[in-house]
Amino acid sequence: MPAAENQQQLDIAAERARCTFDPAQLTPLFYGDEEKLKRFKQIETLIDNDPIFDRSDRYFLGRTERFQRSLPMVKRYVELRNQHGFTPEESSYFKIYIDDYIPAQASDEQLKVWGPPAENFNYIGCYAQTELGHGSNLSRLETTATLDIERDQWVINSPTQSSAKFWIGTLGKTANHAIVQARLIIKGKDYGAHPFLVPIRSLKDHTLLPGVMIRDQGPKQGAISMDNGYARFDHVRIPRENMLMRFSQVSTDGVYSKPIHPKLAYGGMTAQIPFYRDCKILTLSMVSIAATIATRYSAVRRQGNVNVATDLESQVLDYPSVQYRILPLISHAFATIFSGYWMNEMYAQYNADITKGDASLLKDVHVYSSGLKSYCTKLGADGIEEARRCLGGHGYSLFSGMIDFHRQFLATVTYEGENALLTQQVSRYLLKLYRDVVRDPGVHLSPASKYIFSLYHHGLFVKQRCSARSVKDFYRPEVVLGAFQHRAARLIYELSEAEKNGATWSELNLECMRLSKAHVQYIMIENFCNGLEKRFGGDTTTEEQRNLYAAVQSVYNLHVFWTLETELGEFLEDAYFSPEQAQWVRQGLKEALKSVRPNAVGFADCFGFSDTFLNSALGSYDGRAYERLAEMTEREPLNTQLTDKNGVVWGYEEYLKPLIHGQVSPYSAKTSKL
Amino acid sequence: MPAAENQQQLDIAAERARCTFDPAQLTPLFYGDEEKLKRFKQIETLIDNDPIFDRSDRYFLGRTERFQRSLPMVKRYVELRNQHGFTPEESSYFKIYIDDYIPAQASDEQLKVWGPPAENFNYIGCYAQTELGHGSNLSRLETTATLDIERDQWVINSPTQSSAKFWIGTLGKTANHAIVQARLIIKGKDYGAHPFLVPIRSLKDHTLLPGVMIRDQGPKQGAISMDNGYARFDHVRIPRENMLMRFSQVSTDGVYSKPIHPKLAYGGMTAQIPFYRDCKILTLSMVSIAATIATRYSAVRRQGNVNVATDLESQVLDYPSVQYRILPLISHAFATIFSGYWMNEMYAQYNADITKGDASLLKDVHVYSSGLKSYCTKLGADGIEEARRCLGGHGYSLFSGMIDFHRQFLATVTYEGENALLTQQVSRYLLKLYRDVVRDPGVHLSPASKYIFSLYHHGLFVKQRCSARSVKDFYRPEVVLGAFQHRAARLIYELSEAEKNGATWSELNLECMRLSKAHVQYIMIENFCNGLEKRFGGDTTTEEQRNLYAAVQSVYNLHVFWTLETELGEFLEDAYFSPEQAQWVRQGLKEALKSVRPNAVGFADCFGFSDTFLNSALGSYDGRAYERLAEMTEREPLNTQLTDKNGVVWGYEEYLKPLIHGQVSPYSAKTSKL
Repeated sequence: MPAAENQQQLDIAAERARCTFDPAQLTPLFYGDEEKLKRFKQIETLIDNDPIFDRSDRYFLGRTERFQRSLPMVKRYVELRNQHGFTPEESSYFKIYIDDYIPAQASDEQLKVWGPPAENFNYIGCYAQTELGHGSNLSRLETTATLDIERDQWVINSPTQSSAKFWIGTLGKTANHAIVQARLIIKGKDYGAHPFLVPIRSLKDHTLLPGVMIRDQGPKQGAISMDNGYARFDHVRIPRENMLMRFSQVSTDGVYSKPIHPKLAYGGMTAQIPFYRDCKILTLSMVSIAATIATRYSAVRRQGNVNVATDLESQVLDYPSVQYRILPLISHAFATIFSGYWMNEMYAQYNADITKGDASLLKDVHVYSSGLKSYCTKLGADGIEEARRCLGGHGYSLFSGMIDFHRQFLATVTYEGENALLTQQVSRYLLKLYRDVVRDPGVHLSPASKYIFSLYHHGLFVKQRCSARSVKDFYRPEVVLGAFQHRAARLIYELSEAEKNGATWSELNLECMRLSKAHVQYIMIENFCNGLEKRFGGDTTTEEQRNLYAAVQSVYNLHVFWTLETELGEFLEDAYFSPEQAQWVRQGLKEALKSVRPNAVGFADCFGFSDTFLNSALGSYDGRAYERLAEMTEREPLNTQLTDKNGVVWGYEEYLKPLIHGQVSPYSAKTSKL
Repeated sequence: MPAAENQQQLDIAAERARCTFDPAQLTPLFYGDEEKLKRFKQIETLIDNDPIFDRSDRYFLGRTERFQRSLPMVKRYVELRNQHGFTPEESSYFKIYIDDYIPAQASDEQLKVWGPPAENFNYIGCYAQTELGHGSNLSRLETTATLDIERDQWVINSPTQSSAKFWIGTLGKTANHAIVQARLIIKGKDYGAHPFLVPIRSLKDHTLLPGVMIRDQGPKQGAISMDNGYARFDHVRIPRENMLMRFSQVSTDGVYSKPIHPKLAYGGMTAQIPFYRDCKILTLSMVSIAATIATRYSAVRRQGNVNVATDLESQVLDYPSVQYRILPLISHAFATIFSGYWMNEMYAQYNADITKGDASLLKDVHVYSSGLKSYCTKLGADGIEEARRCLGGHGYSLFSGMIDFHRQFLATVTYEGENALLTQQVSRYLLKLYRDVVRDPGVHLSPASKYIFSLYHHGLFVKQRCSARSVKDFYRPEVVLGAFQHRAARLIYELSEAEKNGATWSELNLECMRLSKAHVQYIMIENFCNGLEKRFGGDTTTEEQRNLYAAVQSVYNLHVFWTLETELGEFLEDAYFSPEQAQWVRQGLKEALKSVRPNAVGFADCFGFSDTFLNSALGSYDGRAYERLAEMTEREPLNTQLTDKNGVVWGYEEYLKPLIHGQVSPYSAKTSKL
């Protein structure tokens, strides 16, 4: 007996029927609050109803066509924004929802520099820092800005091939102004990199200004419609005032005034913070897109074991190996959002402090946002790909909806602080805190690093052992947090010892990668734990509330056990865990997967994505995966443009017919004539 | 002082100058032998000189254009093959070197079935097994072939949407015949899946034959030019003789004769074996492509620490974190080739045996090729991506040469036996061997699984401890092989115990993934170790020979320590390794990276790839990475087709000018009207 023709719809309905909570209750968590969610959904409707943003043929388009779609999109976006008066947050959501790069990606911070002309898109701006030969190391940039005192101008120049600006978003074709990072030079003296506002294209007719050479830099893994650009400047002159003088200043007679903090010269010191915000949003949304598609499809896909009563194969989501590869995406998304809220609070506090002249949180904010960015983007990039592979062959089709967005997402592991590099900053900071504690055991530490302190006091860096006496103990936050604190503290201690013993910093960058990950995993579990209690553990009067709490708790447990199991060696290698405890971790992971499984489709639903946004044959709400795959083929250009009315493919006469009709000299010799 | 304009060329030349061996001495290892290498290089010249195979604009082409390039390629391929009388092996190499799918991917085994018409491309064939709703589970295929005794015909039918054939290579537009796997039905009795030869397009004019509905199935992650197809059959009639009767037979009066072995009915029992061969070649070539590009670029890319004497930053390849992410690709490639030779020998032995009616090696060949396929393709897919991320921003450009081929490669983790599924077959087999040993301690085991035997005899499954007393001991093969044997044996034992205690097989598929990996890692290290000695350790009379031996040995050590470190938890969790031994493993890995580092560019060179084949701005032989990146932008269609003679982009008048000139109603309200 074959499955019913609507078996997939029956399956997904059954999943929803047995879900223990109402997914809509969780949705606001991912959008801020109920009220924001409502406004965002209105934006979705605006976009869904506008043919300019139609994405039904996106998977068939090459780069040129994607770029050609993006220009109408940016104009329409501005029209809609102006018409409806979007807040910056709504504008951000708009760009996320159209799920394509459109020119004009300036951050809020950059918009402040540009002012109203940029806000109204009279200036289309870009930020030109990266060079062909240099990414994040500002101190080695080669582009120069030399002061011509006589004419009161800066001369911007690219002295070498490797000094060319590269990777600059919207520079390639659309921007007319650039903030260029260049070494400031006065009377032969080099003051290092500073930002300059450089007009690059005519405001009148968009032609390139004299001395400016620009190219689109070619195709990329993702961000396919974005015109990242490549530029060289040949002694381009700009007024002295075009130096951005918020921090450093240069007078008409060429006197340079230092910024209050040397790093502020760059005007980019806190860039990591808003960036983390973007990355968090991206990570979160992209991990939850993948979780939605992979979970729904695995609930309707049946393979393998046959139930004798129904003659149906198992839903693949019932196999532990599938659960293991897919369900952690759900817990990654929850873990990311809770740490996102935590980071937002810290950032708000920092902003409040700074108005009172107190910048003491700056380092914390910078370091934790760096660590989270580094860890979460890698977690997402790897997790999405693992889930995609778990969808069988159909995961390899662009129609799966698992590929296009992931290609775009893959940029996040590299840009604005390469993930491996960021771990050095995190580790350097933790090492400093540890040394502070050693020097002064009474020093102040922020909550997220307090463990260094308490562990130091108890002298437990080395000899501590985990107290768990059964798998049950791993459900107690103090046991789990204690384990993660111990591990991070031990790695700080080992790093410190290694440096004491003469290792150079760059010889230790593998250790930095391990330490940063250890610390971030600890704060993510702590944030998840605290967020869970605060948001769901407070009022559990009704059964509904209790069910919701229990459901999110099951996701928390999955996050904990998945992280523990992934890092098992780290807890075993100093005998903090015993072999028996390691077995309990594996057991706990199996239990956690089992307990998330019944609500899996409910969790997928709770992210609140529309079918239009997902653009996925496999992950649509109604579960009709196979029909949709078949339907989507009807739009494939090979079937439309390249096939004639008799159903014969382009090129048949010229290339296939001579073969099929034997008009090519035959193959005879089996011995090579080479 | 900035770096010299030709700094990259100086850097890569310096790398070659200090290499301790001649890379050309290693190249034949990857191509079979000197003589084959010579013939393959002749094929490369044929292709490089033919404009039809020109790949200089490949990264700019969308799917439609890539498909349009593939048809001239297949015709030209046949012409060249016939003209030069390529052997099957040369034909294979031809297809690998053009590095693009062309229609006609039939394997040697399939060509035997098709015969001369297929060999000469009169028949363009495809193998139609997978259905929308079913991948590898042949027993659940839904397509039917019902015998009409009266008319002596089979009626091929797709009863449901999910029974449609999907993922069938060359079916979409180019094939005219298909081998269709369908359930054989006679007088209402279902005999399970069997292969049938079904004409699908007219040999006269290529139109679809009656009852056949076919579509190209749309865009995929990779294999972009291949027309994988989707087909439904509406009571299509074929002669009775079109059942492939090599194994099972059906007489004119509808009497079915069983095959000698039930699985032989599929005609695909040994499909995994030749497939592994393909996968190995793919894995090997693609891992070594990535190793070549990533190593060369990291040798010429300078970032970070500045040398005071030269004022040059460090080559990034000098950072341990970069070595850790890139150099293992070199050891993966060597490990894969040595296990490839081992598998080839086993397969040759099996083929020799089978002519004498001895099929005893069948299971070994099948299981080991499955395990190696599963492990090596995942290792490659993950390793290539990790290395790509380690190239900084430029790794995200298609010009890097790290993306296009990887997208194609990603299919290997899924097709012809999904990697996770294959681990169940490996584990099931190992479990059976273990039970054989328990039942009869004198039973015969093949060399690769003998460890089960010896460990059983010594009763050491549980309580064994690693004997290493310093990091030096880990350089002794018996210590390392002992560790991997112990771990695999322990996991077999645990799996057996879990099943004894009532766990169902599908509850244990995570354990199967772990066990299969453990076993494969063991045989790969053993094969590497043996291959190293056999090929390079024999005659070490000259200094040249000794250097070569030492160089390959350093790669072997990297493979060993990388694998041990990656799996550290597995050796710790039953206390086989002590915490101290774990530290030695980490130390050994650092030593191994350091010792491969000086020869890294030599190893990259030894894979023998031409610049044309690599098609990479970053990884070309001469190291001119930045110049090439800039040069490649000149061909970008956004810069050529979409930019007018004044340098202004397509769409400026319509979409950008209204914004820049303030012709869109301005943005004022900061409070949303939503």
